[in-house]
Amino acid sequence: MEETHLKRRVNETKFQIQWGDTDRAGIVYYPNYYKWFDLAGHNFFRSIEMSPKYLEEEKRIIIPLLEAKCTFEKPLYYDDEVTVYTHVNEVKTKTFRFQHEVYCREIRTGYGYEIRAWTSIGDDGFKAVPIPENIKRILKVI
Amino acid sequence: MEETHLKRRVNETKFQIQWGDTDRAGIVYYPNYYKWFDLAGHNFFRSIEMSPKYLEEEKRIIIPLLEAKCTFEKPLYYDDEVTVYTHVNEVKTKTFRFQHEVYCREIRTGYGYEIRAWTSIGDDGFKAVPIPENIKRILKVI
Amino acid sequence: MEETHLKRRVNETKFQIQWGDTDRAGIVYYPNYYKWFDLAGHNFFRSIEMSPKYLEEEKRIIIPLLEAKCTFEKPLYYDDEVTVYTHVNEVKTKTFRFQHEVYCREIRTGYGYEIRAWTSIGDDGFKAVPIPENIKRILKVI
Amino acid sequence: MEETHLKRRVNETKFQIQWGDTDRAGIVYYPNYYKWFDLAGHNFFRSIEMSPKYLEEEKRIIIPLLEAKCTFEKPLYYDDEVTVYTHVNEVKTKTFRFQHEVYCREIRTGYGYEIRAWTSIGDDGFKAVPIPENIKRILKVI
Repeated sequence: MEETHLKRRVNETKFQIQWGDTDRAGIVYYPNYYKWFDLAGHNFFRSIEMSPKYLEEEKRIIIPLLEAKCTFEKPLYYDDEVTVYTHVNEVKTKTFRFQHEVYCREIRTGYGYEIRAWTSIGDDGFKAVPIPENIKRILKVI
Repeated sequence: MEETHLKRRVNETKFQIQWGDTDRAGIVYYPNYYKWFDLAGHNFFRSIEMSPKYLEEEKRIIIPLLEAKCTFEKPLYYDDEVTVYTHVNEVKTKTFRFQHEVYCREIRTGYGYEIRAWTSIGDDGFKAVPIPENIKRILKVI
Repeated sequence: MEETHLKRRVNETKFQIQWGDTDRAGIVYYPNYYKWFDLAGHNFFRSIEMSPKYLEEEKRIIIPLLEAKCTFEKPLYYDDEVTVYTHVNEVKTKTFRFQHEVYCREIRTGYGYEIRAWTSIGDDGFKAVPIPENIKRILKVI
Repeated sequence: MEETHLKRRVNETKFQIQWGDTDRAGIVYYPNYYKWFDLAGHNFFRSIEMSPKYLEEEKRIIIPLLEAKCTFEKPLYYDDEVTVYTHVNEVKTKTFRFQHEVYCREIRTGYGYEIRAWTSIGDDGFKAVPIPENIKRILKVI
């Protein structure tokens, strides 16, 4: 089985905390974590050469969010250099789950997940459809 | 001329400064002023019973922004109650100008303008078109 | 016990979906739900006459977020009138949990929770401390 | 005069348009331009080894905004790769002006400026103060 030797695919998204990301307590305003999760998920698909734009325009597939959760462990401050590590830790028939871990200076500041549905854009609207087997293999931890 | 006696049409948009609107200096992060300008402009059109949604869906008209400027006079803080006063202070053939004044506790904290174009959604794309005379009369200071 | 007859305290936060809340799919960009949760929690405290500003400045108490989750059920669109219903459905020694339900036209579009810690601002930093009994009684479902 | 041979100092800030930057028209929601201006100004100061954090913490100087204007020329879309070119095109006694030009695929999509004040953090509040001569030389077009 060729895929048994694959390692877990982890994508990294790096950025710096901006002035406007902070609040009057001087720490990051928490909804920003979910903006980063969203960005990190888009970057994950870009990293496997299936950007969301390509999926939508060429494959008529979008991947709307069903659920997102984040646990906040440490504050983040203006100027901090952040890395979000993203991998897929669950693939079901029509849905999959991104796990995101946020780090600054080798300390994890928060982590969480997004569950998204593989969704076809049809003439009569949107419909969750099975994730193709070849894409499951790419997404999945083996 | 019935319209000669009309007073200047000013619309008010009220809201409270939210936690996430502030930055680590404890004051409002300045790009939020432009979010309020955008909202206040939409509310102005709602107040004359031509909501942007109605204009787009029924009249195939959108009003994209050409230019926006803001002058910042006083800081705004978390919990502040704010009112944006909006009127149209210039109407040209295909464009008009919103003037926005931001107040808190009867002190002006900032002011500025947006210039927007009356734009038709056609089969071959977007095109600035003349603002109809009846709408000019509604928008304009008389 | 006077409090045994109290009904669950539910606070309502109402607003309209703004142009900038939407994304290119025409639906609300999901991190906005967490902005609304944050706002709805602040409003809950305002409704019991303990605004976060009062708590911070008078009581030296802040209530940072430990965890937040949201389940997304239906899309929300530009112009939609939304109500967030907020109550406290768990109170522990030093933490409590807000439950938020988002409705539009009597249909629930999403729901979730925030877990927050009762935290004292001391000379040597922040420290989670027990929630006072009188405040527990106000927060809690009886 | 050593500085007469210096070329204009221009700093570049590069990023990609994110999903949440767009609105239901599929184009960038305009207040984002000002977020980029703010970021580009911070990056300009970082590029001359005077990050805003350093200025605030070591020099007790902040640079609040007095005025910002942007002219919008072309739409920007999801996934677009953008560069903001930033230079200082006016230095007065206590204020200076950033000029920002936004490009995508070698086409300018918008441009504008920010006027900021050199401001000292004192025991009795904030006060605009003269920009030191050595910093004027660094900021200025020669």
